[in-house]
Amino acid sequence: MSQSLLLDQLIDALRCLPGVGPKSAQRMAFHLLERDRPGASRLSRALQDAVENIGHCQQCRTLSENEICSICTDQRRDASSLCIVETPVDVLAIDQSTDFRGQYFVLMGHLSPLDGIGPAELGMDLLEQRLKDGQIKEIILATNPTVEGETTAHYISKMAAEYGISATRLAHGIPLGGELEYIDGGTLAHAFSGRQKVII
Amino acid sequence: MSQSLLLDQLIDALRCLPGVGPKSAQRMAFHLLERDRPGASRLSRALQDAVENIGHCQQCRTLSENEICSICTDQRRDASSLCIVETPVDVLAIDQSTDFRGQYFVLMGHLSPLDGIGPAELGMDLLEQRLKDGQIKEIILATNPTVEGETTAHYISKMAAEYGISATRLAHGIPLGGELEYIDGGTLAHAFSGRQKVII
Repeated sequence: MSQSLLLDQLIDALRCLPGVGPKSAQRMAFHLLERDRPGASRLSRALQDAVENIGHCQQCRTLSENEICSICTDQRRDASSLCIVETPVDVLAIDQSTDFRGQYFVLMGHLSPLDGIGPAELGMDLLEQRLKDGQIKEIILATNPTVEGETTAHYISKMAAEYGISATRLAHGIPLGGELEYIDGGTLAHAFSGRQKVII
Repeated sequence: MSQSLLLDQLIDALRCLPGVGPKSAQRMAFHLLERDRPGASRLSRALQDAVENIGHCQQCRTLSENEICSICTDQRRDASSLCIVETPVDVLAIDQSTDFRGQYFVLMGHLSPLDGIGPAELGMDLLEQRLKDGQIKEIILATNPTVEGETTAHYISKMAAEYGISATRLAHGIPLGGELEYIDGGTLAHAFSGRQKVII
């Protein structure tokens, strides 16, 4: 407890940030008040603007302040190829690292019946509608390589099959720069069974 | 660059926090928008309230939303003992860890002529006025054990001497739980020359 109520409130509010404990929150609060008040004001406005205006794209469910996000409205992108991810940050990661220039569908989670997250919560009806439309020729399943992610991918690939759409899954294997000796067994087994022919 | 302008602004604004780089800022922004919008709103308001209302105590210069802070107005505290620190967070640290129940004076920095920080910027006139008042019998110099902190402490102790007020400095030595082998030479020399008689 500091000697100022507003300061205590600020320190407490900063703890909503992931990875920020009581000590970091205290350091942040003092830093902002002593050295960067314009930054604090700017952050306050940016938070308010974002919370008030950022919703979900009605087509792909990613975070967006517009009804349809900038990726879905981009005419240069290939609307016949759809990449399905769990979260908006995955869209960013794939768009930055790969040459994929199709569209995305963001589940905002994965199937997890015990937590009450079923197909409805993940917008599967919206996804099915798009598959039904006939414009999509290929879906790329880029859910996480976890049990829930695999289950979700499996569910979607079955749905895609009903509409005759081919589905691919991101390859599992040894990460670049990884050393065999430190790779977990599951990954190594995947990498081994998924070995590819060397082309000379 | 994400696909949302407001999101980019939020990620950028989060970087004003100490220790937060581009990746952490991105993680924080997505976390807030996907999982904790009430927390984000609360943080926005707390930041605004703090920036608008927290100023400096007119008596001790610490951060406070009132003209005189709660420590300076607390009648139970000993007004004859004044502890001088560099920053408001030092007040917190000393109040939490020691049984000191006197008053504080917060310099909001240390003497650093090259950065244009002289006695005026540290409120030395305000401090001198309080020493002149005659109520203070002892000052405790708790500036940091750096070159600038020592210089500042020296400056203040000379000022105190003019008014016949005794000044003490926090002891330097080996931190509790520290191992001799890993202590830096300067600290060890201080600890050695400041050795104290063992009382049985």
